[in-house]
Amino acid sequence: MSAKNLDSLDKIVSLSKARGFIYQSSEIYGGLSAVYDYGPLGVELKRNIEELWWKSMTQVHDNIVGIDAAIFMHPKVWEASGHVDGFNDPMIDDKQSKKRYRADMIIEEHILKLREKGKEDKADELQQELDTTGTREGLCEDLHEIIMREEIRAPESGAFDWTEVRQFNLMFKTHYGATSSNDEDAIYLRPETAQGIFVNYKNVMDTARVQVPFGIAQIGKAFRNEVVARQFVFRMREFEQMEMQYFVEPETDGESYDEWLEKRLEWHKEIGIREENLRVADHPEDKLAHYARSAADIEYHYPIGWQEVEGIHNRTDFDLGRHQEYSGKKMEYYDQKEQKRYIPYVIETSVGLDRTTLMVLCDAYREEEVDGDSRTVLKLHPKLAPTKVGIFPLVKKPELKKVARKIEENLKQDFTVRYDESGSIGKRYRRQDEAGTPFCVTVDFDGLDDDTVTIRYRDDMKQERVKVDQLETVIRNRMKSWKPE
Amino acid sequence: MSAKNLDSLDKIVSLSKARGFIYQSSEIYGGLSAVYDYGPLGVELKRNIEELWWKSMTQVHDNIVGIDAAIFMHPKVWEASGHVDGFNDPMIDDKQSKKRYRADMIIEEHILKLREKGKEDKADELQQELDTTGTREGLCEDLHEIIMREEIRAPESGAFDWTEVRQFNLMFKTHYGATSSNDEDAIYLRPETAQGIFVNYKNVMDTARVQVPFGIAQIGKAFRNEVVARQFVFRMREFEQMEMQYFVEPETDGESYDEWLEKRLEWHKEIGIREENLRVADHPEDKLAHYARSAADIEYHYPIGWQEVEGIHNRTDFDLGRHQEYSGKKMEYYDQKEQKRYIPYVIETSVGLDRTTLMVLCDAYREEEVDGDSRTVLKLHPKLAPTKVGIFPLVKKPELKKVARKIEENLKQDFTVRYDESGSIGKRYRRQDEAGTPFCVTVDFDGLDDDTVTIRYRDDMKQERVKVDQLETVIRNRMKSWKPE
Repeated sequence: MSAKNLDSLDKIVSLSKARGFIYQSSEIYGGLSAVYDYGPLGVELKRNIEELWWKSMTQVHDNIVGIDAAIFMHPKVWEASGHVDGFNDPMIDDKQSKKRYRADMIIEEHILKLREKGKEDKADELQQELDTTGTREGLCEDLHEIIMREEIRAPESGAFDWTEVRQFNLMFKTHYGATSSNDEDAIYLRPETAQGIFVNYKNVMDTARVQVPFGIAQIGKAFRNEVVARQFVFRMREFEQMEMQYFVEPETDGESYDEWLEKRLEWHKEIGIREENLRVADHPEDKLAHYARSAADIEYHYPIGWQEVEGIHNRTDFDLGRHQEYSGKKMEYYDQKEQKRYIPYVIETSVGLDRTTLMVLCDAYREEEVDGDSRTVLKLHPKLAPTKVGIFPLVKKPELKKVARKIEENLKQDFTVRYDESGSIGKRYRRQDEAGTPFCVTVDFDGLDDDTVTIRYRDDMKQERVKVDQLETVIRNRMKSWKPE
Repeated sequence: MSAKNLDSLDKIVSLSKARGFIYQSSEIYGGLSAVYDYGPLGVELKRNIEELWWKSMTQVHDNIVGIDAAIFMHPKVWEASGHVDGFNDPMIDDKQSKKRYRADMIIEEHILKLREKGKEDKADELQQELDTTGTREGLCEDLHEIIMREEIRAPESGAFDWTEVRQFNLMFKTHYGATSSNDEDAIYLRPETAQGIFVNYKNVMDTARVQVPFGIAQIGKAFRNEVVARQFVFRMREFEQMEMQYFVEPETDGESYDEWLEKRLEWHKEIGIREENLRVADHPEDKLAHYARSAADIEYHYPIGWQEVEGIHNRTDFDLGRHQEYSGKKMEYYDQKEQKRYIPYVIETSVGLDRTTLMVLCDAYREEEVDGDSRTVLKLHPKLAPTKVGIFPLVKKPELKKVARKIEENLKQDFTVRYDESGSIGKRYRRQDEAGTPFCVTVDFDGLDDDTVTIRYRDDMKQERVKVDQLETVIRNRMKSWKPE
């Protein structure tokens, strides 16, 4: 048996569409860019990932609790967090096509074209200039000057008819409630879920009887009006995050940061990701976000290259401090033992649920040659598999169907199952292979006499004959002992 | 023991805040009206409800699959669904205060005031007039005329300085993507989740190998800019729905509607709601929504009265028909056995997740007098309880703590647990009573010799001594056999 790993994202896009993992949003209307819907297999996979993450945080740790804050928050939250002022991209409009572009991207593309034409010196010079444009104040003017001077044309219309460069906020804005003036009631879709945790930090402390160090975990949607959103579910305008903010005593932040980085890396292995496809990339100090003392990405080796799937950040007391300033509410913690008062530091672990789902699909994907035949198989961790057990009567005979249906009836109390009687048994196995179903149970005539069935394992395609009343135990044991190949 | 049921919503609001079930959103900034955040206990309760609903739909039925469509959808979807044209409220602005009101509500309040002043005849007459204003075309003019004629003043400013009455759409609008013209890129936050199912109906049929009758289930957020949003989580601007759309052959819609109404009523009983607090209210034919042939509410007896928690609707082929018309894509199903082609009819079951959570809290709430003492207890179905097991060392002695921690370590693999060593044992029981924790395990000195602990049951407060290695079994059995009192 020879196996091939995934070599292009397109294969996952096709499989996702064909088998019902992920569809483009509003496809019958031509689609909505950078938004996707999860299909029947996708939603089960996603829910399983969520559930494992949630348990690994809240159930396993006695000092981590969950919350679920709303997407809508008071607009002041985003002033305090820095998003109203700082969460911008420099944009320029082509007056002819009415299309809007990121000004720095327009220049980047121009540099690429110069290189294609062999003008490496000019390209290097421009790149150098672009890299050093910079302070937020002068950025728009600097970028505009370059575009004008180099006479860079609009990518689609080919026109040289630009507006000024202006900062555009990436938050989606809407109007809320019942006032007639439009500025008073502006509200944003949250661009990150973390702030829902920070504004509830006091509520949680007062009601959940936690003591520093403690964590608050949350799963939820966030929204960013990215100009360049692409690469399937990797970068979407609407996406889901699984975040845990861990509140610690100021001097212990470094230690806690190291600990969580290690724990989170471990989690990715526990859900079945192969070690060689994971790595940690530290953010160099000069590239840190305004709120961070240190930061690292857990990266996965996607077919599009090494990319961030999770971020671990030492956010210091930045967020709580800002909320204290903007809300006038004390955000201090009083340590009774040590008799001291402080604003806790925060270690954040933030993993993209969509990116994790994509990682899981990519890592599980194999094309295998088996005795001259080929199959596509998703070697998902059985705990993540959307369907745990396929149940087939060998042929469409009433006596076999009856037994198969009875097995379905029993197993579906504890597992997601799929009854299938159509097509050859080989075809049915292949369908379940593509869906990542770890176990298939086939009812045949031999088994009618001694209450046995064959159970077939997805990964090595081996088959065993087992007693019907042993099925549940066999499946449970296999699920526990599973390891990625 | 004498028990008292819930008599006011305020008690649930207070308990929710105090124990961390539900907080007001962005509370440190003065709150955001009609939006709430779920705290540590609330999020676990909500997740448990979700999980039971999801399993009762997708895992138990072999012809129901799930999806998870995005909140953002193509704007054409809302033209097809009728929401762009029809999802409006008639609004009027007070020019002095700049506040906006629902015009019909202004008149309703005026009628109430008339009644308070004993002017019943006038009130009846006006009510009659209001009830017969009506066709959508003339509605705004009619309402405006009444307000002018009766010289109704603005509730807050007391001014009589109104704008015209205009229709305002209840959908939240935002701008999407990268074009500079503002009308092209308008997009809505979905006001219902159902359309995410309808636009994916073809995708699901093509990939999930389902045949009519089949269902698609979904849990997700929806958003409505309600002018009058109130009554805690009962009517929010951001809320969560659990919906299942069941696609059937046109002539079988009546039968399927009856079946689902019955099944859904049964589900509410299964999650522990007392039968006497549930009822079905049919919508009279002249009050049906534009898409519905028949509709019924499953109502719960909240402290604010009988109110809808779930709606069952026969949506006919309205939605699929409209999407066929607007997208140009065939929405027909081809029945191979019968060799006929049709657009399926849709039976919808739509239950509010927040309303269900509120119902569960209300129904479980009891104040009990026990031997002169009183306690507040949430008699939640154990499957729904946020914490399954409280684990206490009787006193803070190392040898008891060690055993208690070991029990915690074991049980937390399968259950949500809460270790607690602070305060008297009585206080610890009361805390868990208020959290709805069905089991408390106490480690005492007697038990050290024979590996036993006492398990205390929330509902009757009875205690039993059991072997430590029997705990899991005892808990599992009790969870299965639990019935509401």
